[in-house]
Amino acid sequence: MRVLGVDPGLTRCGLGVVDGGSGRAVSCVAVDVVRTPADAALASRLLRIADAVEEWLDRYRPEAVAVERVFSQHNVRTAMGTAQAGGVVALGAARRGLPVVFHTPSEMKAAVTGSGRADKAQVTDMVTRLLGLPEKPSPADAADALGLAICHLWREPMRARLAEAEARAAELAKKHRARLAAAAKQAKGAAR
Amino acid sequence: MRVLGVDPGLTRCGLGVVDGGSGRAVSCVAVDVVRTPADAALASRLLRIADAVEEWLDRYRPEAVAVERVFSQHNVRTAMGTAQAGGVVALGAARRGLPVVFHTPSEMKAAVTGSGRADKAQVTDMVTRLLGLPEKPSPADAADALGLAICHLWREPMRARLAEAEARAAELAKKHRARLAAAAKQAKGAAR
Repeated sequence: MRVLGVDPGLTRCGLGVVDGGSGRAVSCVAVDVVRTPADAALASRLLRIADAVEEWLDRYRPEAVAVERVFSQHNVRTAMGTAQAGGVVALGAARRGLPVVFHTPSEMKAAVTGSGRADKAQVTDMVTRLLGLPEKPSPADAADALGLAICHLWREPMRARLAEAEARAAELAKKHRARLAAAAKQAKGAAR
Repeated sequence: MRVLGVDPGLTRCGLGVVDGGSGRAVSCVAVDVVRTPADAALASRLLRIADAVEEWLDRYRPEAVAVERVFSQHNVRTAMGTAQAGGVVALGAARRGLPVVFHTPSEMKAAVTGSGRADKAQVTDMVTRLLGLPEKPSPADAADALGLAICHLWREPMRARLAEAEARAAELAKKHRARLAAAAKQAKGAAR
């Protein structure tokens, strides 16, 4: 399975494509950072990011896209820009019918380093080692994008199985309620 | 001039098209609210909003798009969804080369009611009156979208003039600095 990981941002948007198999082995296909000028209009910055993502989807044909989920940041303005960039990335993937999954930074860190509170240097080190890269990806946004793709490859089978189990449980609960209602109705009829 | 105003949101996204002339007269061309189900995947909700906006851009051919700028909200999750929705709206407009301008809620309220702190009911009342609508647009997101379009129509000439004046001042300052540098060089040469 091939996954495009995206660490969204207006100033720097990390993109990383990783291939994974049935085991834990992962390999890096491509990694880069898209930059947009801070003095450009917001809409044109978003367009530039969207175009870059479209190009990557065309060139590398990933089967899924993993995007960092932003909860909050110290700087609200930056957080909004990050969310907007993440939105256009998700849209590009959805237009092609690709599944888009959002992972929090701590989910990614936990998957890659074993600790949800790892710092940037630890994430970069582990990503470099896991992918057997000749040098550390830089800046941190590039390493984060690769980390998100790895996180997705490793978590997705479990996540999908969990979602399936939950759907099955909900279906059973629904059937059970219907059966109870039918029994109650029958009991009411018999009592008359 | 025709403007599409957008009050972005995942649950409800307000869309309003308003025509304006050289004076203050404005008329409503269309208004609606796009809803997306809360249980749908984020990417598919964004796709639905993007598709609706594309359809409106095709059908009504506005010359500019005015989007509400989100700074922060009580609920961070909602704020992020709003920002993501705003991002895909801006992207759709940018893809067609349309100018996209973000206005804060208080800019819109000030333009429409005269007070940046007006409440939802006051905005709805003024929008209804200004556009001579037979009934109040509902829900509030619809009125807000129309308010944003009106705000843009009224503020844009001033905003554009201000931006032009600032660009001219920056150009003059640059020329002035170049002249000073040339004079200093000349003086240095003469002193030798």
